[in-house]
Amino acid sequence: MESFGQRLNHKIRACGTPALVGIDPRWELLPDAVRTTAAGGKGTIFERTAAAFESFSRQLIDIVAPLVPAVKPQVAFFEQLGVPGCRALHSVMTHARKAGLIVIADAKRGDIGSTAEAYADAWLAGEDPEAAAWPADALTINPYLGSDSIQPFVDCAVTRGAGIYVLVRTSNPGASDFQDRISQDQSLYEAVGDVVQKLSEEHRGSSQYGPVGAVVGATWPQQLSALRERMPAVPFLIPGYGTQGGTSSDSAGAFHDSGLGALVNSSRGINFAWLRKPYSEQFGQQRWQEAVEAATRDMINDLATHTPAAALKSPTQTPPS
Amino acid sequence: MESFGQRLNHKIRACGTPALVGIDPRWELLPDAVRTTAAGGKGTIFERTAAAFESFSRQLIDIVAPLVPAVKPQVAFFEQLGVPGCRALHSVMTHARKAGLIVIADAKRGDIGSTAEAYADAWLAGEDPEAAAWPADALTINPYLGSDSIQPFVDCAVTRGAGIYVLVRTSNPGASDFQDRISQDQSLYEAVGDVVQKLSEEHRGSSQYGPVGAVVGATWPQQLSALRERMPAVPFLIPGYGTQGGTSSDSAGAFHDSGLGALVNSSRGINFAWLRKPYSEQFGQQRWQEAVEAATRDMINDLATHTPAAALKSPTQTPPS
Repeated sequence: MESFGQRLNHKIRACGTPALVGIDPRWELLPDAVRTTAAGGKGTIFERTAAAFESFSRQLIDIVAPLVPAVKPQVAFFEQLGVPGCRALHSVMTHARKAGLIVIADAKRGDIGSTAEAYADAWLAGEDPEAAAWPADALTINPYLGSDSIQPFVDCAVTRGAGIYVLVRTSNPGASDFQDRISQDQSLYEAVGDVVQKLSEEHRGSSQYGPVGAVVGATWPQQLSALRERMPAVPFLIPGYGTQGGTSSDSAGAFHDSGLGALVNSSRGINFAWLRKPYSEQFGQQRWQEAVEAATRDMINDLATHTPAAALKSPTQTPPS
Repeated sequence: MESFGQRLNHKIRACGTPALVGIDPRWELLPDAVRTTAAGGKGTIFERTAAAFESFSRQLIDIVAPLVPAVKPQVAFFEQLGVPGCRALHSVMTHARKAGLIVIADAKRGDIGSTAEAYADAWLAGEDPEAAAWPADALTINPYLGSDSIQPFVDCAVTRGAGIYVLVRTSNPGASDFQDRISQDQSLYEAVGDVVQKLSEEHRGSSQYGPVGAVVGATWPQQLSALRERMPAVPFLIPGYGTQGGTSSDSAGAFHDSGLGALVNSSRGINFAWLRKPYSEQFGQQRWQEAVEAATRDMINDLATHTPAAALKSPTQTPPS
């Protein structure tokens, strides 16, 4: 079985970019055409909204699948629609897997003992999409409950060739409230990072990266670079690029010279590109799909120019000496 | 509109107990009769298992509804079954609300900005079960992402008469890994506790307790008592009683003299009472429902004997001077 790290690296190399597209459907931001179709359907408001989310997300996937290695559905927006939303999420995740994308479920789950086992079993399908109720390659995890709450996810990930991304340093302003608290010359996020590094190192085998990743916001570039030093075996997931203010230069420190080591996520900036310049003027909402494609290509180029991602362009190169 | 704190206290007084029953269906622990019925049904393995979970949980609710104020469905076990599990969860939560129970969804959600708003909107129905996709009175929350990740839940809770329970000091052994880290003479869990106290105080109005509660494990009795002092306006949710080793004496410090201030949860100990002595001998799995009822009554009596919950027995009493 291929490990998550191996599959991810193959896919990143094949696409030549570490760009990750978030799937964040929101009713008030959907193009009118998608909303009108849904409104004409039958069923409850949740069912019709879920139909719109599903239609939008599947179109989004079809556009980005030839361009990027991975997508990250935000579970909250589907959960908000109850059972119909869950059904739409499952359909969207399945569609993304069939399109050959790596699927990272952004659910930020966390619990203890057999409950953590249940969440892991629920989400970590890994190599075989049929291996779990939700066909994710990887899942985001919250570490507050401690190492023994992370272990069941690691065990399941190793068994199934799946990955987890543990919240280490998040992209929001309030991240500093608890994550920056220093105890014996070490902040909480560094302590979490050390646990994550240890777990990934333990299970990386002959791969450069293990199955335990870290979520580190692009909004904290110095911390990002320091964490890359501290966590050499850990694949990073970097939110905060674009709408949240993080730039590609801010993300640069997360990568190794090979161009590997991180995925940089954009959600709103891609999903709703038609709402912002220059795409709003160039395409408008009638041509929202073209806006999505243009914004994705622009992100890919931006990352290639300002991060080591350019190294990915020649996939057969030897590692830098 | 009645606040969550008011509704909870009325219900605790009406039942005369702070016992909270977790709803934790697990296939391998279900009585044969429930499993056989499910196995005879149609559909996928997830659909049949979900049917068994739903049947079991609804029977459990019918047994405990006349005895306790609240139930706590563990979302992970339903999520593990995909869309059919979500459908079962919704049915179970709706059934519990109709039975007059306070429903605390144990989902440990947490995210930032509009994503946190989506989770809050999804789960915090509050006073009106129809106000959200999932009809919960309250939801458990993970604080790792910081104060700005908690605020959207607070805002929604205040608007809808709902409550949240923030993880402060969890019941697992690994809780100490991060939660006990001390920064400037204050542990992380104390820092989280202070935020929780501030938020609950801010929104408690004329009630003794605000809408922002704390999860504090029964397995740490000294910390529990200290946190009660530190967080006078905060309703506690205490896991770890029973199977995890916490006793009613361990929980005693969470209560005010009125007998109010906390709910003590038991999940496995009640759900699968037929598996352990003395209920296994007295009832066995053929009479698992009677085992549930006996275990619930025993827990209620235990709490009444070893915590200030006895004060609840005289609901018209004046507050202690």
